[in-house]
Amino acid sequence: MLNDILNWRYATKKMDPSKAVSDEKLERILEAITLAPTSSGLQPFEVIVVKNPETRAQLRAAANDQAQVTDGSHLIVFAAWDNYTTERVDAVREQMETDRGMKNEGLTAYYENLKAFYFSRDERTNFDHAARQAYIAFGIALVAAAAEKVDATPMEGFDADRFDEILGLRERGLRSVVIMPIGYRDAGEDWLVNLKKVRRPRDEFVKLVA
Amino acid sequence: MLNDILNWRYATKKMDPSKAVSDEKLERILEAITLAPTSSGLQPFEVIVVKNPETRAQLRAAANDQAQVTDGSHLIVFAAWDNYTTERVDAVREQMETDRGMKNEGLTAYYENLKAFYFSRDERTNFDHAARQAYIAFGIALVAAAAEKVDATPMEGFDADRFDEILGLRERGLRSVVIMPIGYRDAGEDWLVNLKKVRRPRDEFVKLVA
Repeated sequence: MLNDILNWRYATKKMDPSKAVSDEKLERILEAITLAPTSSGLQPFEVIVVKNPETRAQLRAAANDQAQVTDGSHLIVFAAWDNYTTERVDAVREQMETDRGMKNEGLTAYYENLKAFYFSRDERTNFDHAARQAYIAFGIALVAAAAEKVDATPMEGFDADRFDEILGLRERGLRSVVIMPIGYRDAGEDWLVNLKKVRRPRDEFVKLVA
Repeated sequence: MLNDILNWRYATKKMDPSKAVSDEKLERILEAITLAPTSSGLQPFEVIVVKNPETRAQLRAAANDQAQVTDGSHLIVFAAWDNYTTERVDAVREQMETDRGMKNEGLTAYYENLKAFYFSRDERTNFDHAARQAYIAFGIALVAAAAEKVDATPMEGFDADRFDEILGLRERGLRSVVIMPIGYRDAGEDWLVNLKKVRRPRDEFVKLVA
């Protein structure tokens, strides 16, 4: 049951550095991220999986020294496209034509219109849009980790510019937007693990127009 | 298996208007949305579930006349907070104190710092941040629907201002950001249902720093 999985997960504060997520589990989490739906199928972001301990130590220093970055076994960084470009959009359309074994005017027209629309907007608006798509995948990644009984911590508290520098993202037209260390909880040392999950009252959060 | 669920789902283009999502399934989808993690636990958005057919007809007209809005049985609208306010942040902290049966200086200090940080940013930055949190829940909602074998269509192609007007959102400090009709596919009439799911090549989308 999905909601059991969602109740099991929590923003893990202390991970056990002696335990590593297996390649098989990591692969299934990455597959879920890949399957996440995105606007017009563009997947306008990249996923950087940092396993290297030295790189993670550098990143931890740029993430308010949050220990999960190095106590986990991998850090997954979501980096959004800084803007939409002809090259990027055309590559997706071509992929679609190849994979579906067909080329049609409707598809071409769709992506031409999309480019005209995106290119009429400023870079910040397009980056924000790309970032939102990354967040769809990020939400799904958190479910995917929990489905594997892998712990994860959703994190926005990091220096994105410094991350981009360490990972060489800006020169590739990417900007880190959100990160997620994965690993295994150290339940005995985690102050949050046994605290009740708190949510806003349902009747304030969900409204029905019947 | 989560990835089977993700492979089953697709952006449904034609829904069968004769089939309705049951209250039980809707409830589990809403519960998953409620359980979605958000930055500092704020859940800075509301979820409007529109069942009323007349309201959905109006919304459809403001959503490029996309038929799923009325062919589905419910339309789920994610509306982000237009800004962070003292009242909103304090209400979450108080909820936390009540639910966990404790009040502590650390928690108070955390949220006071958070407010100072948010209030130093402009409204657009805060709204964008709130919208991203809504997208985490949106990603999870798409999984939740599919887990119930309920079809859904992720949609950004709608007139947000018009939606806000129809649903009376702006006066409540909310702005619609993304929508999701739910219902059941009409497989015989849906051009997309049998097309291959297309994704960017894995080695371009995921990078490993080993």
